[in-house]
Amino acid sequence: MSEAAVTLDGWYCLHDFRTMNWPAWKSISNEERNQILDEFNSMIGLWQETEASENGSHALYSIVGQKADFMMMILRPTMEELNEIENAFNKSKLAEFTIPTYSYVSVVELSNYMAGESDEDPYQNPHVRSRLYPTLPKSNHVCFYPMDKRREGNDNWYMLPMEDRRSLMRSHGMIGRTYAGKVKQIITGSVGFDDWEWGVTLFADDVLQFKKLVYEMRFDEVSARYGEFGSFYVGNLLDTDHVASYFQI
Amino acid sequence: MSEAAVTLDGWYCLHDFRTMNWPAWKSISNEERNQILDEFNSMIGLWQETEASENGSHALYSIVGQKADFMMMILRPTMEELNEIENAFNKSKLAEFTIPTYSYVSVVELSNYMAGESDEDPYQNPHVRSRLYPTLPKSNHVCFYPMDKRREGNDNWYMLPMEDRRSLMRSHGMIGRTYAGKVKQIITGSVGFDDWEWGVTLFADDVLQFKKLVYEMRFDEVSARYGEFGSFYVGNLLDTDHVASYFQI
Amino acid sequence: MSEAAVTLDGWYCLHDFRTMNWPAWKSISNEERNQILDEFNSMIGLWQETEASENGSHALYSIVGQKADFMMMILRPTMEELNEIENAFNKSKLAEFTIPTYSYVSVVELSNYMAGESDEDPYQNPHVRSRLYPTLPKSNHVCFYPMDKRREGNDNWYMLPMEDRRSLMRSHGMIGRTYAGKVKQIITGSVGFDDWEWGVTLFADDVLQFKKLVYEMRFDEVSARYGEFGSFYVGNLLDTDHVASYFQI
Amino acid sequence: MSEAAVTLDGWYCLHDFRTMNWPAWKSISNEERNQILDEFNSMIGLWQETEASENGSHALYSIVGQKADFMMMILRPTMEELNEIENAFNKSKLAEFTIPTYSYVSVVELSNYMAGESDEDPYQNPHVRSRLYPTLPKSNHVCFYPMDKRREGNDNWYMLPMEDRRSLMRSHGMIGRTYAGKVKQIITGSVGFDDWEWGVTLFADDVLQFKKLVYEMRFDEVSARYGEFGSFYVGNLLDTDHVASYFQI
Amino acid sequence: MSEAAVTLDGWYCLHDFRTMNWPAWKSISNEERNQILDEFNSMIGLWQETEASENGSHALYSIVGQKADFMMMILRPTMEELNEIENAFNKSKLAEFTIPTYSYVSVVELSNYMAGESDEDPYQNPHVRSRLYPTLPKSNHVCFYPMDKRREGNDNWYMLPMEDRRSLMRSHGMIGRTYAGKVKQIITGSVGFDDWEWGVTLFADDVLQFKKLVYEMRFDEVSARYGEFGSFYVGNLLDTDHVASYFQI
Repeated sequence: MSEAAVTLDGWYCLHDFRTMNWPAWKSISNEERNQILDEFNSMIGLWQETEASENGSHALYSIVGQKADFMMMILRPTMEELNEIENAFNKSKLAEFTIPTYSYVSVVELSNYMAGESDEDPYQNPHVRSRLYPTLPKSNHVCFYPMDKRREGNDNWYMLPMEDRRSLMRSHGMIGRTYAGKVKQIITGSVGFDDWEWGVTLFADDVLQFKKLVYEMRFDEVSARYGEFGSFYVGNLLDTDHVASYFQI
Repeated sequence: MSEAAVTLDGWYCLHDFRTMNWPAWKSISNEERNQILDEFNSMIGLWQETEASENGSHALYSIVGQKADFMMMILRPTMEELNEIENAFNKSKLAEFTIPTYSYVSVVELSNYMAGESDEDPYQNPHVRSRLYPTLPKSNHVCFYPMDKRREGNDNWYMLPMEDRRSLMRSHGMIGRTYAGKVKQIITGSVGFDDWEWGVTLFADDVLQFKKLVYEMRFDEVSARYGEFGSFYVGNLLDTDHVASYFQI
Repeated sequence: MSEAAVTLDGWYCLHDFRTMNWPAWKSISNEERNQILDEFNSMIGLWQETEASENGSHALYSIVGQKADFMMMILRPTMEELNEIENAFNKSKLAEFTIPTYSYVSVVELSNYMAGESDEDPYQNPHVRSRLYPTLPKSNHVCFYPMDKRREGNDNWYMLPMEDRRSLMRSHGMIGRTYAGKVKQIITGSVGFDDWEWGVTLFADDVLQFKKLVYEMRFDEVSARYGEFGSFYVGNLLDTDHVASYFQI
Repeated sequence: MSEAAVTLDGWYCLHDFRTMNWPAWKSISNEERNQILDEFNSMIGLWQETEASENGSHALYSIVGQKADFMMMILRPTMEELNEIENAFNKSKLAEFTIPTYSYVSVVELSNYMAGESDEDPYQNPHVRSRLYPTLPKSNHVCFYPMDKRREGNDNWYMLPMEDRRSLMRSHGMIGRTYAGKVKQIITGSVGFDDWEWGVTLFADDVLQFKKLVYEMRFDEVSARYGEFGSFYVGNLLDTDHVASYFQI
Repeated sequence: MSEAAVTLDGWYCLHDFRTMNWPAWKSISNEERNQILDEFNSMIGLWQETEASENGSHALYSIVGQKADFMMMILRPTMEELNEIENAFNKSKLAEFTIPTYSYVSVVELSNYMAGESDEDPYQNPHVRSRLYPTLPKSNHVCFYPMDKRREGNDNWYMLPMEDRRSLMRSHGMIGRTYAGKVKQIITGSVGFDDWEWGVTLFADDVLQFKKLVYEMRFDEVSARYGEFGSFYVGNLLDTDHVASYFQI
């Protein structure tokens, strides 16, 4: 048995992707649409209060292409709160005009591959805490994809000794670091929670940086030999100003 | 031919996952909803009587994310009873507001990998009986996933000698044991009954323990080389108090 | 080129799986439902006449879990007759309340792997004939799954010499024989007819024997190295008495 | 780089599979159904004129099992004509009662694996022309499946030298030849047009010959090591007489 | 870690595939259909203005077979503009009669595999600019497919040294060059944007050239060993004249 990686785990995370039923949305009156958006904005208002009090965070992005029309990403201290938010949205009027297309359940995660030795309780370290309980950036663009580490023939990540995995992850992290200031990355672990082992959420003001980062990493052994990737979603920020025009008919 | 593992088999098991048709549910009156939930609660009442008389058991959990809204897990002595419960639910009013999203048919199973030699009839052993005919815990959280043992090139579980499999399973079981008191695990066998070879149902009060357990096991050779996993479902307990608020509009 | 296996082929076979649209079924009156079931029972009556005159056979089982609600298995001398029965069902009233979920087209098959040498015409041998043109048993339970022989790297069934395949199949058949009296197995070939190479239909009064048989076989090299399996369906007999209660609201 | 195979390409080909919406079809009057079938028969009449003038060909078969209810196979000199026929059908009344379930776009193809050397323009050779621009037989049965040549590890067809591929294809073709008079085979190439590399359409009066041919070929190295197969569709001839009874309620 | 390929990136690209709901389209009056097409043509008019001012480009093709009825390909300087065009279409009347079937999000890409060394800024080179910001040709036919470079066992593109990849890509490019004047190829990169690594869009007046090009390339090591291909879509130009007849009932 290989030595298992140890993780630090922060807020629970729900990515919720929806497609609009545009014909139904268009079939109701402007007034009704405004009432529905008012209710939706009230819900977002509650999320903003939670974010302001540092009890969670959220992000709202439109998604390009047919996989979804928009995505809500929610961070909360418990799985129960995620479920409540999901159900509250499902019971809202706007939800009647949306079709669920994909979701992902995970928890913000830091692994010990990069960590040095220390006697300190990492959960008390402010730098660690800011990464486990992050306020999501309001960048122009988001990119989400789930991934696994491969277990296939000679390319079996989970059979590698800890030292090899640590060294591979370090060189992998070096690439990430060259994108500091350009791309912000949130890793969420989903082993036992959803169908892949991790979710990766990237934030950037320049959407091209997603492609540059992911492509450059693909030549690194961690991705080249051991990465298995699910669907990629890319989108644009839906801040308060954009919500109105986005849903306007 | 390798020596086949021998199993002890207990109650038959149906996992039944459903999504709510929330718009339809919202379109009816409070009164109608209450009548429908009364009928549903009566059905659960019957299940509770069966559980009290130790002729079966059940669990009801909400599911986080879009894969399902809730999951009913039912244990009964015969496949016919599972089918009757399934059909009774399908004929109930609540079912008209649900969409089936996944199900799993299996039977509670213990394997002989861990067993010592004995002349005793294991089906008479009270400890074994309590595991074959278990009352499901009412833990805060559930995790379900189906799995196979891999048969691929050099990683073919079913071509390994019994002694190797036994030794691998023992070390695997050691990990599980370190989670005693934190995670309760029910293994159900589904060879010949459903699309994977086993279903794994975990119960825990701390949802993070699912991730820790499954992730730690993934570094063990049994999972690392020989495990193939299906979809993971995670959820929160829907006890009598929660049912009302869960379905409330 | 390897020597191809030679087969004896009997009646053509259609497995037709359906899910009930229960809400629609419940929305009509008892009287209408009874008329519809009368029509369905008349159709089954015709099938029974065919079976009585040994021009075909059929089986009707409810299916446990969401994959289907019931399954009709039909054996007939020609592909045209299967198509006629399928269309007759599709044009019946009951079909308006069902949703097709899976079907399988094949032909009852015996292979020459087990056969000794003989000058006799096997199609005249009464024992062979009873297996090529069988009357399906009315056992309590059914299990159906499609399967392929693997063609992958070093595990390529179709590249093995005939002698190796024959010897492997013999040892495989030995396992089957230990279940004589407990499980009846019908093999139907579907190369050129449907997506897998064979369909396996098992009948048993004790449903647990399906699991024991399939699991034991999985440790045999034929399955362990060369078996690829599709979805498994398990169900309970829907004889005339059960049909009424099954469809009763 | 391996030497690429050279192909001769004839008429473009559309396989169009449809399922009937039987409940909707049954809900209209006999008179309406007759009008709709008259329109459909007029369309077929036009196809027959095209076939008579040797500017194309077509075939109409019912399909056994739930994958489709019927299949139209259309051969025409240009891709535009295929598109026009497809759209004409989609705009017809009958199409309102059908659900598209599968289609395949390809072009009749002969490869140079079997060809001898020659200075002749093959497109002027009457024997070649009759195979590139064939009139489809009105056999009792059809079988369709798409396929690829494998590119996997040591089993990579496209990395083999031309001489090896030629020799493998010759021995493969020898099997086909033993079915002359029993099975007629049309190979259509779909590289760049659809998801697999070829479509194979077989015609026979005895449906069992499909199974015998495909199964025998599976033991040949070309299929055993290098064949990847999609879904198989099998059906019965829907000639003018059968159309009426097929659609009759 | 292998040296990563460097790319030049041009306009963002959306491929949007739609199926017509023909029964609904037929159910409205000629007048309504004309109004809807007027709105659609106005939208295309705006796209043409953008193209004329070299701020983007677009293409409109009907698709053969059931995968889609038509495809809109849109090039724009920003991801936001793609999203706006997508949403404008979704809010249009025509969209109410279409069903989304597939889409692809990417960015026009040139790689450095073929490039010589130079001190020049390639983004200022007019030849490079015309390829990064192309006006799409109005050829008779289009072919689209997404693809990956394989990462499997010994066939792992991303583990190859840059020099090997460069040399392989050169020989691959040589094949493409022999189709100059017959096929125009637009490569769009989608790492981080969509589920495959690249989209390939081919334009030709002779549709057979797609098959010849893709098939010839398949024997080249880059495709034979390292190519993984998604679905192929092939279609016919829908220019202003064809739009009217295409949608006419």
